[in-house]
Amino acid sequence: MTDMTELTLEENASLTSGASFWYTKPIERAGIPSLTLTDGPHGLRKQREGGDHLGIGDSVPATCFPPAVALGSSWDVELVARVGEALGVETSIEGVAVLLGPGVNIKRSPLCGRNFEYLSEDPIVSGVLGAAYVKGVQSQGVGTSLKHFAANNQEDDRMRSSSDVDPRPLREIYLRGFQRVVEDAQPWTVMCSYNRINGVYASEDPWLLTQVLRDEWGFDGLVVSDWGAVNERVAGLAAGMDLEMPSSNGVTDAQIVAAVQNGSLDESVVDVAAGRVLDLVRKAQAGAGAVRGPLDVDAHHALAREAAGRGIVLLKNEGAVLPLAKDARIAVIGEFAEAPRYQGAGSSMINPTRLDNALDEIRALAARDVAYAKGFGIHSSTTDADNAGLRTEAVDAAAAAEVVVLFLGLPARLESEGYDREDIDLPAEQLALLDAVLEVNPNVVVVVSNGGVVALPFAARVPAILEGWLLGQAGGGAIADVLYGDVNPSAKLTETIPLRLEDTPAYLDFPGEFSHTRYGEGLFVGYRWYDARRMDVAFPFGHGISYTTFAYGDASAVRGADGDIEVTVEVANTGDRAGREIVQVYTSVPGGRVQRPVRELKAFTSVELAAGETRQVSMTVRRDDLAYWDIRSDSWVVEGGTYVIDVAASSRDIRTSASVDVEGDAVTLPLSKTSSIGEVMAHPVVGPMVQAAIAQMMGSMDGAAAIMPEGVDASKMMESFPIGRAGMFAAASGSPGGVSPEMIDGLIAMANAPQG
Amino acid sequence: MTDMTELTLEENASLTSGASFWYTKPIERAGIPSLTLTDGPHGLRKQREGGDHLGIGDSVPATCFPPAVALGSSWDVELVARVGEALGVETSIEGVAVLLGPGVNIKRSPLCGRNFEYLSEDPIVSGVLGAAYVKGVQSQGVGTSLKHFAANNQEDDRMRSSSDVDPRPLREIYLRGFQRVVEDAQPWTVMCSYNRINGVYASEDPWLLTQVLRDEWGFDGLVVSDWGAVNERVAGLAAGMDLEMPSSNGVTDAQIVAAVQNGSLDESVVDVAAGRVLDLVRKAQAGAGAVRGPLDVDAHHALAREAAGRGIVLLKNEGAVLPLAKDARIAVIGEFAEAPRYQGAGSSMINPTRLDNALDEIRALAARDVAYAKGFGIHSSTTDADNAGLRTEAVDAAAAAEVVVLFLGLPARLESEGYDREDIDLPAEQLALLDAVLEVNPNVVVVVSNGGVVALPFAARVPAILEGWLLGQAGGGAIADVLYGDVNPSAKLTETIPLRLEDTPAYLDFPGEFSHTRYGEGLFVGYRWYDARRMDVAFPFGHGISYTTFAYGDASAVRGADGDIEVTVEVANTGDRAGREIVQVYTSVPGGRVQRPVRELKAFTSVELAAGETRQVSMTVRRDDLAYWDIRSDSWVVEGGTYVIDVAASSRDIRTSASVDVEGDAVTLPLSKTSSIGEVMAHPVVGPMVQAAIAQMMGSMDGAAAIMPEGVDASKMMESFPIGRAGMFAAASGSPGGVSPEMIDGLIAMANAPQG
Repeated sequence: MTDMTELTLEENASLTSGASFWYTKPIERAGIPSLTLTDGPHGLRKQREGGDHLGIGDSVPATCFPPAVALGSSWDVELVARVGEALGVETSIEGVAVLLGPGVNIKRSPLCGRNFEYLSEDPIVSGVLGAAYVKGVQSQGVGTSLKHFAANNQEDDRMRSSSDVDPRPLREIYLRGFQRVVEDAQPWTVMCSYNRINGVYASEDPWLLTQVLRDEWGFDGLVVSDWGAVNERVAGLAAGMDLEMPSSNGVTDAQIVAAVQNGSLDESVVDVAAGRVLDLVRKAQAGAGAVRGPLDVDAHHALAREAAGRGIVLLKNEGAVLPLAKDARIAVIGEFAEAPRYQGAGSSMINPTRLDNALDEIRALAARDVAYAKGFGIHSSTTDADNAGLRTEAVDAAAAAEVVVLFLGLPARLESEGYDREDIDLPAEQLALLDAVLEVNPNVVVVVSNGGVVALPFAARVPAILEGWLLGQAGGGAIADVLYGDVNPSAKLTETIPLRLEDTPAYLDFPGEFSHTRYGEGLFVGYRWYDARRMDVAFPFGHGISYTTFAYGDASAVRGADGDIEVTVEVANTGDRAGREIVQVYTSVPGGRVQRPVRELKAFTSVELAAGETRQVSMTVRRDDLAYWDIRSDSWVVEGGTYVIDVAASSRDIRTSASVDVEGDAVTLPLSKTSSIGEVMAHPVVGPMVQAAIAQMMGSMDGAAAIMPEGVDASKMMESFPIGRAGMFAAASGSPGGVSPEMIDGLIAMANAPQG
Repeated sequence: MTDMTELTLEENASLTSGASFWYTKPIERAGIPSLTLTDGPHGLRKQREGGDHLGIGDSVPATCFPPAVALGSSWDVELVARVGEALGVETSIEGVAVLLGPGVNIKRSPLCGRNFEYLSEDPIVSGVLGAAYVKGVQSQGVGTSLKHFAANNQEDDRMRSSSDVDPRPLREIYLRGFQRVVEDAQPWTVMCSYNRINGVYASEDPWLLTQVLRDEWGFDGLVVSDWGAVNERVAGLAAGMDLEMPSSNGVTDAQIVAAVQNGSLDESVVDVAAGRVLDLVRKAQAGAGAVRGPLDVDAHHALAREAAGRGIVLLKNEGAVLPLAKDARIAVIGEFAEAPRYQGAGSSMINPTRLDNALDEIRALAARDVAYAKGFGIHSSTTDADNAGLRTEAVDAAAAAEVVVLFLGLPARLESEGYDREDIDLPAEQLALLDAVLEVNPNVVVVVSNGGVVALPFAARVPAILEGWLLGQAGGGAIADVLYGDVNPSAKLTETIPLRLEDTPAYLDFPGEFSHTRYGEGLFVGYRWYDARRMDVAFPFGHGISYTTFAYGDASAVRGADGDIEVTVEVANTGDRAGREIVQVYTSVPGGRVQRPVRELKAFTSVELAAGETRQVSMTVRRDDLAYWDIRSDSWVVEGGTYVIDVAASSRDIRTSASVDVEGDAVTLPLSKTSSIGEVMAHPVVGPMVQAAIAQMMGSMDGAAAIMPEGVDASKMMESFPIGRAGMFAAASGSPGGVSPEMIDGLIAMANAPQG
């Protein structure tokens, strides 16, 4: 393969768009091969040759691991990395260069149709687990594509809609997870999203793709468009969008050449983009063949089962109704038990190598016969009469059982890439079935299958709930494992389960209208919202229980030389079986200068403990993660002060706290005519002088102060005046000649002069 | 007085700023006199000659009418106009040209320190009552100043803070009240506010001061700066800010002259602004002397008492504890009874002609002795021990009484122009006193004095609550009138009383930081928020009860030829005493194309009914008030469809509903490359052709559709694609040659061609 500098302008331009749906362009004379990029994230979706190319046709069988919603609920960095490695293996075996994942967009609203592909409502969870995924995949000599960059948090009108987000939430919530993945794991590629951000298409936003991604975060890979995300190709190339996918049939390559020729685009921009494509080719060539086939289908299926077991969240378990005894007389009800929902619709749909269902797996583990009834239909063709009949049958089965395991969930048609949900309710016939079952048997274990969160209005009325998400091809076995206690559940929620859709932060501006969506809730996404407004939720962020119990010792928090904070705590398994506890660290800054959430997750880990075992765990809160985005200086600023470090079993179950003093970053802002008099009075150089002048002026207005009600602080009004308008006060106080603009300019110059 | 065209540039420039704090500049050689402008809004604050000029010194005695918070609660257009006339009389007698009011800013948060000067959280209430005020004042040959224009909804950092508001809430909530006043009442002047709007100072915003105010609304008066609101004078003049107040000592006049001389400002701009000053002078001269003094202090005090009586809201009255019998053995408790809070602090502070207190007025009406105890101290110097002593004394008085009338309220220091509140709580010692009193006597009538709403955590525990706001100088008598039933209370809330500060719409972005405040709640201000999120409140917008009861007949709604809707309903007084009922009309558009509040107030009226009397009332919903601000076309658009017309006693007490069909405005938007395929398919001209092409393409992808889960609508994904990127689908479907940019351009041209 030759160097790009030997390529012609036309050849370089040709490298910046696809050859067809899944392939980059080769340049045979230069020995440059075509690369294959295919969908992920939770499995390889490599389309068969000759199929349709839209991304929804038949594809080569691959292991369908748990989608991000379940994988993320493991909070398990090591597990996510192992799944990543397995995905890398499958990618390599199929000769694919880049697997299009992970998706680390924030779950802003439970309605987003693609939430099942995303990890969390929190950027630290998304960033840490996203980085683990990237490292895992890329360890096998193939690349990833971090997506969808950025602020792509809905499906509605996704090709045009502008995510109108203020700087702090954009930086602190929506970009923070991407930043973490880029800085920690350097994905080979980043995929720009379809949407606009504050009016500018992500695919042609130089601030996003160059200033933030490359200059600030140090990204050195390639930016690829989401399929069809290119709006104006030349503007995109100039902004840093290197590779357009899929093919433009040469149309945009010609536009690029023409732009160089007419002088509106610098040829070096084309060279840089083509060079990044060649860099990707080099990486792919270096990694190619690292893994040899054939695929060990069994081993990957087993890993998929393990991962699914770590993604099931035990929300409640009153009276220890779970785990089930293997000889318990149980009735399994609900069609999802035999026809599992295990992945979401859209471009991430895997053609699985195998597919377990929970009913068969339960029967495989049970020590006696297991009754089953469908309970309801999950197809849109099911009639009310059908459901009534199924319900009667199910109630009979429930009445005859000791324990009912009731599978509820969202039918596939309700959530998909490409559109959003309109509510968070389970179908009415399912809730009606639950009511009917509860009338004959209160021992109901509900297992929910869903990609996005659903309301659980029955939460107080059933003794046990397993949140089963979408668990991939081996989810059926994992559910059986957890029901019978072969796996002790340990997952926790990476997103809040609200009581009502109306309670959710984005409720009033999701999905926006006329191609604009105001992110009106600002920083207060997910638990940050419910905590700040002191609202009840169904189950809080970070919540999840176990068949055993854990006790926490006293936390300690120590600041290291690099400013990072080491948090340590002893965790004891106080129950009678082995289990895993996910330990969370939240921080807050009482009395800080900027608005902050009540507490924010900054670190987490998990620890496996035998019954009765105690171990010390430690977690690092990075100093960088304490920073807020300062809109005055357009930079990250760590505020100095005493930070509270909460060590918690969930966002609402703080077990132990410590505090630590943090040295802040200095923010020095020059004074200007718009600086308030209060700010000027506080200035180290000119402040004393101005204070004296003000005191004299106020002295002449004693009569004025006297008439104000007792306790009213008239000076507050004055201190809020910009210094550039101080003349008004001087005039009011009868100061001869007033305060001239020259005097103010002089004062400002004095304040801003370099101090010797 | 000569014509401005005969003035020199320097003279014209000199007219555009004040001579001193309250006066415009005269030009003696041209016979142009100086005008006086002084603070309002609820009384004339004309400072004595030689006093300080900052707006807080001693002023000429004037009638202190109820501040806007109470006056607005009357919902009484005729009363507000009469108060306006009385204010006009006092203004004219004092030789003042312009009274600086009314304030019609929206109460976005209960925390705003200046809420007592504003009318409502709703723009129709603010606009209708604001217009009545302007008409009343101006009927006396003096002018008003509609303020603070615009989006000035907090005091914190008010000189610089940018109110960052999206177009729909800006138009539909924050500007709508101003628009109503300008269009209906043509105030002589509009006062621009201190703050910025979306980054631009109101005092130099050509969009605000010229495009919206003059070109769209037809304002033909003068724009005056709030005192000290000028940032860059030349930019302000060019934007349409005619008169700078107070004096700049000639500095900005010289800047204007210099700008004309150096060519950066067109001299015609100066001519226009000076011309508007001269127009104001002419109006003032024409009106001068219309009213002769001296002021009839008694008559205006009586009007102030009448208005205050109409502003007191009876929030609850369990067991008809009110009205009190005149011979009831009552104890009056609370220092506010003898030291009333009757106005707010800051520039609106009136030096009243007289000041009643409730205790004396109660004693004047009572037929027996009235006990009194202070109960708590209202000064910041009061100690806990002081309060404990006062509490003991008060509890003794309460124990000996049949009924306790307990005066609670916000001490004056807690709310003022210039700063905002930090909570909505009554002081702890007052709540403690209430608890102690309730222990010895459950018959407690609470009377609250406050400029901004306060939480009423005791609402369920006391039988009666009077919301007494700030009632002006005659409020004491009005409270006595209402307590004894000499006046039957009839006011209703023009703002929601929430349960908790955390529930309020702006809670998480008030007052913003670093000079930016995001109006994140968008359209959902006040009741619009609580209704949309289905939240409980303490007392809803529009609520207020009477000593009698009212029944509503069936509403009818008829659309007139002009598109306005005439709503009629019969209202019956079903109780045993005369009373006044405020009738409210709310509208909604089920299934509308844009997001809307659950219901929005569009009209109201009040009707006085003798016991047993029934009358028909009618109200007009203006067609213009049904419009939403369409961000695609940047214009008001009335959506066609069936509107629900709710006739209500409060926003949560809908008594009768009707519906009416409304003809909509056509919005024709040209197609472009960013039009979605769905929009193109729906286009009347090219739609059918595109539909056929798509059908053919989809046919070739049957295999793709088959693999998607049942019910998933793959076409939704495609229809959201911009037509300019249709090539991707064509390529995917194997269409030979794809869809070229030329084909798409041709299609768009065909769609947008004028149709013959």
